[in-house]
Amino acid sequence: MQIKKINHAAIVVDNIDRALEFWRDALGLELAELREVPAEAARVAFLPVGDSEIELVQPVTTDSGMAKFLEKRGAGLHHICLEVADIEAAMEQLKARGARLINEKPLTGADGRRYAFIHPQSATGVLVELYETAG
Amino acid sequence: MQIKKINHAAIVVDNIDRALEFWRDALGLELAELREVPAEAARVAFLPVGDSEIELVQPVTTDSGMAKFLEKRGAGLHHICLEVADIEAAMEQLKARGARLINEKPLTGADGRRYAFIHPQSATGVLVELYETAG
Repeated sequence: MQIKKINHAAIVVDNIDRALEFWRDALGLELAELREVPAEAARVAFLPVGDSEIELVQPVTTDSGMAKFLEKRGAGLHHICLEVADIEAAMEQLKARGARLINEKPLTGADGRRYAFIHPQSATGVLVELYETAG
Repeated sequence: MQIKKINHAAIVVDNIDRALEFWRDALGLELAELREVPAEAARVAFLPVGDSEIELVQPVTTDSGMAKFLEKRGAGLHHICLEVADIEAAMEQLKARGARLINEKPLTGADGRRYAFIHPQSATGVLVELYETAG
């Protein structure tokens, strides 16, 4: 499969406004968008950097995976997302090569794009998201 | 300051050869280089992805920061590195805006390039490296 690029690095935070004091105000990244993402029970800030993004994710419930991560480990890097052209081919290749996936089939986001997660146990402790983009 | 891009995401691993079984063999990233980095007391694998890299770092001593991270938290995402055109300007801006730096002055790597780390306490729990590249 072809991995095109790092789409984003996701950082779980407990307060997105305070997080922006560092990532936007001190570091100087541009805040492209800040929106509620009900499917992820989170508020997400999108800050482009080069050909990728930093995403700041603030859980808005206590029972999501990210909320539990935040409670257990505190704020910090949560996952990295890699762009692929064909997510089903990518998932088949990974399964054939012994990697464990969290999702058996691709999930579909509110914007129609498809994504899936590889289990950290297969990926040296890193939660890896695959994200399909056309072309 | 201008942040150009994500230079790399660094992943600390306990065994780089086993780590490559996922990142290179299952996922399909290219291994561009695998080398000893005495200054970091580590073996490092460089796997380009788009305009960035995944770096797999295996500590070769037990007393480095990454070795302690590995012992305490296990393998996983360790830091992200952002490219800047002028590292001293970047560090001055961050200090002026209240961010805490780990390094008071830029460090110089074996290849002559300059870098510095921002303290995770200032950066929502994320260890952020700044890395100066020309142009």
